[in-house]
Amino acid sequence: MTTAPWRDPALPAAARVDDLLSRMTLEEKTAQLYGVWVGADTDGDGVAPHQHDMTADYDWDELITRGLGQLTRSFGTAPVDPALGAQALARAQRRIAEASRFGIPAVAHEECLAGFTAWGATAYPVPLAWGATFDPGLVEEMAAHIGRDLASAGVHQGLAPVLDVVRDLRWGRVEETIGEDPYLVGTIGAAYVRGLESAGIVATLKHFAGYASSAGARNLAPVRAGVREFADVTLPPFEMALREGGARSVMAAYNEIDGLPASADPGLLTRLLRDEWGFTGTVVADYFGIGFLETLHKVAGTPAEAAHTALAAGIDVELPTLRCYGDALVEAVRAGAVDESLVDRAARRVLLQKCELGLLDEDWDPTPREAIDLDSAANRALARRLAEESVVLLANPDGLLPLAPDTRVAVVGPRADDPMAMLGCYSFPSHVGVQHPDKPVGIEIPTVLEALRTELPDAKVTYTQGCDTSDPDTSGFAEAVARAAEADVCLAVLGDRAGLFGRGTSGEGCDVADLNLPGAQGELLDALIATGVPVVLVLLTGRPYALGRWDGKVAATVQAFFPGEEGGPAVAGVLSGRVSPSGRLPVSVPRSPGGQPWTYLQPPLGLAGEVSSLDPTPLYPFGHGRSYTEFAWSGISAPDAEIPTDGSYAMEVTVTNTGDRAGAEVVQLYLHDPVAQVTRPDIRLIGYQRVELAPGESRRITFGFHADLSAFTGRAGSRIVEPGALELRLAASATDVRHTARLTLTGPERVLGQDRRLRCETEVTAVE
Amino acid sequence: MTTAPWRDPALPAAARVDDLLSRMTLEEKTAQLYGVWVGADTDGDGVAPHQHDMTADYDWDELITRGLGQLTRSFGTAPVDPALGAQALARAQRRIAEASRFGIPAVAHEECLAGFTAWGATAYPVPLAWGATFDPGLVEEMAAHIGRDLASAGVHQGLAPVLDVVRDLRWGRVEETIGEDPYLVGTIGAAYVRGLESAGIVATLKHFAGYASSAGARNLAPVRAGVREFADVTLPPFEMALREGGARSVMAAYNEIDGLPASADPGLLTRLLRDEWGFTGTVVADYFGIGFLETLHKVAGTPAEAAHTALAAGIDVELPTLRCYGDALVEAVRAGAVDESLVDRAARRVLLQKCELGLLDEDWDPTPREAIDLDSAANRALARRLAEESVVLLANPDGLLPLAPDTRVAVVGPRADDPMAMLGCYSFPSHVGVQHPDKPVGIEIPTVLEALRTELPDAKVTYTQGCDTSDPDTSGFAEAVARAAEADVCLAVLGDRAGLFGRGTSGEGCDVADLNLPGAQGELLDALIATGVPVVLVLLTGRPYALGRWDGKVAATVQAFFPGEEGGPAVAGVLSGRVSPSGRLPVSVPRSPGGQPWTYLQPPLGLAGEVSSLDPTPLYPFGHGRSYTEFAWSGISAPDAEIPTDGSYAMEVTVTNTGDRAGAEVVQLYLHDPVAQVTRPDIRLIGYQRVELAPGESRRITFGFHADLSAFTGRAGSRIVEPGALELRLAASATDVRHTARLTLTGPERVLGQDRRLRCETEVTAVE
Repeated sequence: MTTAPWRDPALPAAARVDDLLSRMTLEEKTAQLYGVWVGADTDGDGVAPHQHDMTADYDWDELITRGLGQLTRSFGTAPVDPALGAQALARAQRRIAEASRFGIPAVAHEECLAGFTAWGATAYPVPLAWGATFDPGLVEEMAAHIGRDLASAGVHQGLAPVLDVVRDLRWGRVEETIGEDPYLVGTIGAAYVRGLESAGIVATLKHFAGYASSAGARNLAPVRAGVREFADVTLPPFEMALREGGARSVMAAYNEIDGLPASADPGLLTRLLRDEWGFTGTVVADYFGIGFLETLHKVAGTPAEAAHTALAAGIDVELPTLRCYGDALVEAVRAGAVDESLVDRAARRVLLQKCELGLLDEDWDPTPREAIDLDSAANRALARRLAEESVVLLANPDGLLPLAPDTRVAVVGPRADDPMAMLGCYSFPSHVGVQHPDKPVGIEIPTVLEALRTELPDAKVTYTQGCDTSDPDTSGFAEAVARAAEADVCLAVLGDRAGLFGRGTSGEGCDVADLNLPGAQGELLDALIATGVPVVLVLLTGRPYALGRWDGKVAATVQAFFPGEEGGPAVAGVLSGRVSPSGRLPVSVPRSPGGQPWTYLQPPLGLAGEVSSLDPTPLYPFGHGRSYTEFAWSGISAPDAEIPTDGSYAMEVTVTNTGDRAGAEVVQLYLHDPVAQVTRPDIRLIGYQRVELAPGESRRITFGFHADLSAFTGRAGSRIVEPGALELRLAASATDVRHTARLTLTGPERVLGQDRRLRCETEVTAVE
Repeated sequence: MTTAPWRDPALPAAARVDDLLSRMTLEEKTAQLYGVWVGADTDGDGVAPHQHDMTADYDWDELITRGLGQLTRSFGTAPVDPALGAQALARAQRRIAEASRFGIPAVAHEECLAGFTAWGATAYPVPLAWGATFDPGLVEEMAAHIGRDLASAGVHQGLAPVLDVVRDLRWGRVEETIGEDPYLVGTIGAAYVRGLESAGIVATLKHFAGYASSAGARNLAPVRAGVREFADVTLPPFEMALREGGARSVMAAYNEIDGLPASADPGLLTRLLRDEWGFTGTVVADYFGIGFLETLHKVAGTPAEAAHTALAAGIDVELPTLRCYGDALVEAVRAGAVDESLVDRAARRVLLQKCELGLLDEDWDPTPREAIDLDSAANRALARRLAEESVVLLANPDGLLPLAPDTRVAVVGPRADDPMAMLGCYSFPSHVGVQHPDKPVGIEIPTVLEALRTELPDAKVTYTQGCDTSDPDTSGFAEAVARAAEADVCLAVLGDRAGLFGRGTSGEGCDVADLNLPGAQGELLDALIATGVPVVLVLLTGRPYALGRWDGKVAATVQAFFPGEEGGPAVAGVLSGRVSPSGRLPVSVPRSPGGQPWTYLQPPLGLAGEVSSLDPTPLYPFGHGRSYTEFAWSGISAPDAEIPTDGSYAMEVTVTNTGDRAGAEVVQLYLHDPVAQVTRPDIRLIGYQRVELAPGESRRITFGFHADLSAFTGRAGSRIVEPGALELRLAASATDVRHTARLTLTGPERVLGQDRRLRCETEVTAVE
């Protein structure tokens, strides 16, 4: 008996898939394009919008005979021991393979936004905290660990990273983003992709594209953006994560842009993504997103029309349902309403990826190969390092921090002693544990209070909650004030409780009308400050909140963004001085609670000026963060120069730790374009380098700037490098500029192709 | 001596202007393209943004020898008797004519947003109040009066109407708009244009285009809008005012859209406006707006580059300065950097308009021909009618209004006894009087308190201010509460003080971070409600404020939008019952102060839903307003039907005043498009008719719907009529639907040209 060509690993993948497709029925091909969500509720108390839209009445035994192509989140919905989970997944895969004609298993995908979203898996800091590290190398390492853990459990695809660029701080999903700057999001995001893909896991870029810009910051609301903003702010991180990360999947976003849903847009999902960028992987739908074309966007009248629209746009896989790509699609093809070639196009992409993943090979074996430990000591150490690097010391004017070892500390606040204060809404315990608080979260999560007691064994630490995170009740204020009055210093540990769809103060669907601290926490802080005892504000939040009201009134402010399971020790380590804070803001911290949307990427008229009574200048700028040590910048080599529009230029600076303790500086490079054919942001980040320095140590950092980095979408719609003046600003934050180099680009305007440089090269060398 | 052809009124205007141009030097041609602002301050304490950018060091005697083309606001900057002002203007014009070779006077322009902005001229209600009348006929009549007054004073051009469609209620200039619906703005705006042009005054449509959509509602901030939103929301009022109003000038807006300043956009100012829409008048700059291309937008490096960019885009006239179109432009043309044909193009348009205005004729005579009375009894009567029709009774659940004649009324609030409470920031007294409070405003403006005492001579009326409009001081609360407690009813008269650039709570440059009532007024209202005495909330504002906090707690709410010099009697007339309120909301009144931007023109995902914790549903919807009488809707003839995509359809309804007093109903027609190729607003206004009815009287209203009215900008970028289902909803507000007709459009998709129907025809017939 001869092996069919599609089974022959010696043949090229394309030949194998062509052969396989030619043997498949329409039903079998469409079955490759959808999956089901094993074990998820359909009662709406779920973890995805409109979870009740899920096809719940499928007959599993029948379904798998078609050759079910995709499997959703078998680890994600219940607190199951991951070793048992992996065995269950392997059994399900064997059943799927055995039930169908070709014996092809499904692609199993899981969420992994801030770690594998499974019971007992490491909960790393959220992406906003990765942004605060300015440390792509460490994020890549984390992602490699996540990838290995996913692979060990039989998962093929991870639905991360989120590459949305923050445009409005009120949005609930700010915590899931890497910040407000496309370059930061792109470089950190690409690092995450490299890490995940290094473990053989298919990384999925999301949400493609525009999702973060919804009007009024309401989740899924229409996006008002022009093509130029879209090209220059929204898309670059995706291009970077594809070209520099090698991501093999992209998720189509829920949102519309200027009337056209991303999931219905062939210009985005096919012409740009595939024809221009050369992407060859799969495009998957966001959960129920194809159905939303009919039920929410109203650009399709039936599930079949939604299927047609999405397929034609370029979505290959419907998740996690078969509402549109199931029988509705088959019938539409049979009726001649949908061209079967569209089904073939999507199925070919899915099968090519399966071929690459070894799922078409006869020796495919889903048996878990190793003992599964999703929260290893190595994971925890990595989670700790990330958390420590992500804590941002916003202000410490009088040097109150670090705390004296024997101080009397009154810890107050609803986030001080709640392990969930460390986690964003996409960590497993938030996704499942919070909704079922009787279920254990499966990992150790020390609180700030617990960790502080460990860090400062000689301190006298008291604790009282003061108020709830979101409840307006102030009855606990009196005790909190009394405790504070007895102490040398009061730690107000405030912030968010992550949740889903209104069940938290931050998280998917937890959008806010303004940037006041949730509940009575702002009033609690007022009351604590009124005691006269120095108050250290410690924030564990998913978004920045307006802090102008307390500017100059708190003794110090520490900002952490859901720092993960090791976040308690990381924050406590900063407070005790064990850790020298080195995080930098990936998002501006606003002064006042209204006035959104705003990010630092403003053309001059978006900044404060005499033409409006509103001043959007933030309290703490993008890139800001203080340290316990001091850094000197010296030996700057960045002369004014002329370079051609296709030329490059090098800047150098030596950074020395002039203090008496170790620390890390983040050297940032911003571009200012004085005059251009369209309005340009006053400044934008085009390079950065984090350097860790022992006391007295120096390092020399070289930035290799290429003219491509000045490119923008010009009047004619192409990305161009425009001749003329430029300023390159070496800076310690968006407003703390240490040196400006004035360049003149000479020669003709250049229209850039897909090979343009996306990154500023940096090099760090030791200095004797 | 023969007359030059350009002086010959028998020749066609084009021939005259060609001849004239051929005789002019470059300096003389450019001089036609700019003007100066006679007597304005340059110290920044002015009435335009960046007034200090004005060219102040010109030599008037030299300037007029060039043949100065334009004259700015000779009435607008000081409280001068208009008769003297008209004589001064005539003298200036004679000097201009005499000083130059050709003897051509300037085009004199003035602001006339809510009346001629001159000392002693009628201050009509602001445009937002016109929107509330839903009465284009009355607005046209007002504009004809304004136009006659302008003409009587020697003015040629009026810088109105504002056709910006509200997109964010926080914007300071909401008071200057006609509301949040393009159809309402377009129909009322076109009526204003017809009225102004009927008096021979050049109407100037502004701000072209997109200005109202600035990010964060900050004045002049970048606009994020896609081409589809721009085409379907921003532009229609302009198209309507050109095609149905015959406006002869358009003002280029300050703002950028998606990176391209409107003033630098030939696609907007030339290809769309002239090539597609066929506009042949002049395009003028907003004040200093050409210079802003260099100084604020940074898309030009020098004044000459700004001039080149603006000329090439299609701006013919720089106002009110010669910074760019003066010597800088002449030098650039001489240097070959700017093609002289661009100067000729603009000069030709200006001179054609001057020819049309008779300014090229030898018998031109600037002497004022008649006695000047800018605030005639007829004007005041019209201002009164408009004000009365514009007052919106938002709620009166228990019928507390109208007030009993002999009631004890405690009038409280900072807007109750301030004449300036009636005026928006573009009324003369606000523009000048507020900045120079020692100067008389020149017109009688009864306050609400004064008018109420007149309306209710038998009532016992007390008054105390309670608090300031914007100051947070609450020391006056105690007295206010005491007065309220002694009364049968408390009138809380709250709202805005209009001003410019931060000098008010509403007005140009007075943008707000949220929609809380200004200052301590919300707290004052809380305190008054706490007395237990029924509180009637009377709002005199430039924008809607969030009223959810007091929903169900106030006895009644009356909303007026800066109702003008006769606003006091109008509001008092509603309170006393002399006037049956008939205004309808041209903007939604929000429930909560955060969450902007929002307007009612939302696709389904912009409305409340389970995917976001935010609910943007307003407290009072667009089109809402109550009356003192009752209306029955009967005899509805609106069957479900099929019509072709180029067909029309008639709906009829009989409205009867079933109460015992006169009143007016506003019948509204909304379109709902269940499925379309792009997302569509859930509903939008496509027709309306105000009908005044005596008790017992009936009228039959016919709406003539044409399929063109369902058009939108489709995927391909053209305006199309799409076959498929439609719903036409006869309604008393956006949410109070009385009847739905289900239409099916049959036949092919139609791409519409410039001749598409813009309006729903309505007809009102008496019913016996």
